[in-house]
Amino acid sequence: MIPTIEWHGDHVRMIDQRKLPGRTEWFTCRGYRDVIKGIQVMVIRGAPAIGVAAAMGLALGARSIRSKSYAAFMEKFEKIAHEMLLARPTAVNLRWAVERMTRFAENMSELPVKKIQSALRQESEKILAEDIEINRRMGKHGQGLVPKGSTILTHCNAGSLATGGYGTALGVIRAAHENGKKIKVIADETRPWLQGLRLTAFELMEDGIPVSVIADNAAGSLMRQKKIDLVITGADRIAANGDVANKIGTYQVAVLAKTNRIPFYVAAPISTIDYTIKNGDMIPVEERGPEEIYRFGKREIGPSGVSVLNPAFDVTPASYVSAIITEKGIIRPPYKKGIKRYF
Amino acid sequence: MIPTIEWHGDHVRMIDQRKLPGRTEWFTCRGYRDVIKGIQVMVIRGAPAIGVAAAMGLALGARSIRSKSYAAFMEKFEKIAHEMLLARPTAVNLRWAVERMTRFAENMSELPVKKIQSALRQESEKILAEDIEINRRMGKHGQGLVPKGSTILTHCNAGSLATGGYGTALGVIRAAHENGKKIKVIADETRPWLQGLRLTAFELMEDGIPVSVIADNAAGSLMRQKKIDLVITGADRIAANGDVANKIGTYQVAVLAKTNRIPFYVAAPISTIDYTIKNGDMIPVEERGPEEIYRFGKREIGPSGVSVLNPAFDVTPASYVSAIITEKGIIRPPYKKGIKRYF
Repeated sequence: MIPTIEWHGDHVRMIDQRKLPGRTEWFTCRGYRDVIKGIQVMVIRGAPAIGVAAAMGLALGARSIRSKSYAAFMEKFEKIAHEMLLARPTAVNLRWAVERMTRFAENMSELPVKKIQSALRQESEKILAEDIEINRRMGKHGQGLVPKGSTILTHCNAGSLATGGYGTALGVIRAAHENGKKIKVIADETRPWLQGLRLTAFELMEDGIPVSVIADNAAGSLMRQKKIDLVITGADRIAANGDVANKIGTYQVAVLAKTNRIPFYVAAPISTIDYTIKNGDMIPVEERGPEEIYRFGKREIGPSGVSVLNPAFDVTPASYVSAIITEKGIIRPPYKKGIKRYF
Repeated sequence: MIPTIEWHGDHVRMIDQRKLPGRTEWFTCRGYRDVIKGIQVMVIRGAPAIGVAAAMGLALGARSIRSKSYAAFMEKFEKIAHEMLLARPTAVNLRWAVERMTRFAENMSELPVKKIQSALRQESEKILAEDIEINRRMGKHGQGLVPKGSTILTHCNAGSLATGGYGTALGVIRAAHENGKKIKVIADETRPWLQGLRLTAFELMEDGIPVSVIADNAAGSLMRQKKIDLVITGADRIAANGDVANKIGTYQVAVLAKTNRIPFYVAAPISTIDYTIKNGDMIPVEERGPEEIYRFGKREIGPSGVSVLNPAFDVTPASYVSAIITEKGIIRPPYKKGIKRYF
């Protein structure tokens, strides 16, 4: 697979996910504002990948600070960190990465600024490497839940492209495949951004994992016809009670799975759990621009002036979640208790 | 509103719904095969509109028969009728219209072929006029179910463009609006063909009825947030037990409505009920081409060679349907009994 994001000389580059799979283009970030823009316009997306990008963005930002004194450096660094935090509101991994990088800088007050700057870059590289490792562990735990020969529905893209590499939901799927489980995947195309059609199908085809794409509208009907055995999705933020914020449409898939007695699993690193948030309805849900719905490329497909609602995420109550797959193991209901253990 | 389909001199013309709302173009049918093509490629769609088109197509077909004897005429007419029947498999209104036209021709064995030919054209005009009248009656019955100030979710397009005029689901919505009920509509965009974005929003905006379009993925989340008070959809075929075949995604909406205790209504003429079919799983569901999903206009948006499943319809079990709104009144559960009355 193409790397989602990486250091390339003294800048950071991301695969431009707006253009996949048709074109493979790098989006180069020379400063932290390029990273913020990349996150906002969805050059890079997916909660863990946004976390990695934020860390690298802060390293770029740190490098651009001219101050020689630690206090002045930290003042500027914290301003940059604050700006980074506002890039997108829902995925908590962004905040997690910003906090980790800030704490890391705070612990280096004895060092010269130059050293802190290069240490921050190394830390961002470590976060990337750890993310891939975490996904592999998640895969190992999660694949035990996947029966041989089963057909798995996934929503949006929780793959290599949504993470540092390997993927969360697709990491579990990859691990099941690598274990010779002869699985098949059904990918919701995932309107409006079509992550399923453009990214999930692309990733799985590259890896030789059988995948078919459907309109989001077809998932329920396939479940009713017993053509889906289990569902695995990623998450953008998980509340302390196990409620899951994820790509718009996830709630629907979870309800349909429950109605049709199909297990619904969420694969996410511990960093996706926001222990400060009691329940899912307190998670901020980003509303994105209407043009994602009424425009295609440059072509307007809806009536001129049409009104659109475009929430980018929804909340799935914990009662619909069969288990949460993390790098530390599988959390099962009751989630409050299961989640508490890690905080 | 633009007429969906009409006689224009000695040919039939349809508004090309593939091009709405961007362009208003007529698709001219000089013979019955043009009508079959128009139905197949979805120049015209929607169960009642397909019924009207089939009737007009048979009138065109009848006119092209050169035989002077009644027996020879009928032999050819029945061949044409059989071809027409195969145009699309799911909407039963097509069969209903073909049977009505065939019976009509069968009852004219005493008349010269010329007379039969012109009588068939008149009958097709009558079917069109009746369809509009039926929708108005459906609207009158159905609007009683719509509370003042409510927000109504609809899926696909069951409007003027799906019928001879006025619409089934949108007919009920229009009637509620005309009754001063100050309703709002949320329209599922309805992938893959985007009937909701392209046609439903267009129709309602023309009529000054407030409408917002959402990705199909957002319907459930809005329901959970209590932003939708009721659902009204059309139907392509209703089985004798009340199971409803309709546009793919309808089943999902119905399940989500039930989970969130929101009434789910189906508006359809009696001609949409197929009393010969015991339950919904016996209704043939059309699988359409994969390009509806992976292509947009001429542009491929999915990975090259991607596998796609594209069922055009699904089946909603009767247990999810709060009531069926017909031109003869409202049918409530138990549907077997309620439907039997009309057959």
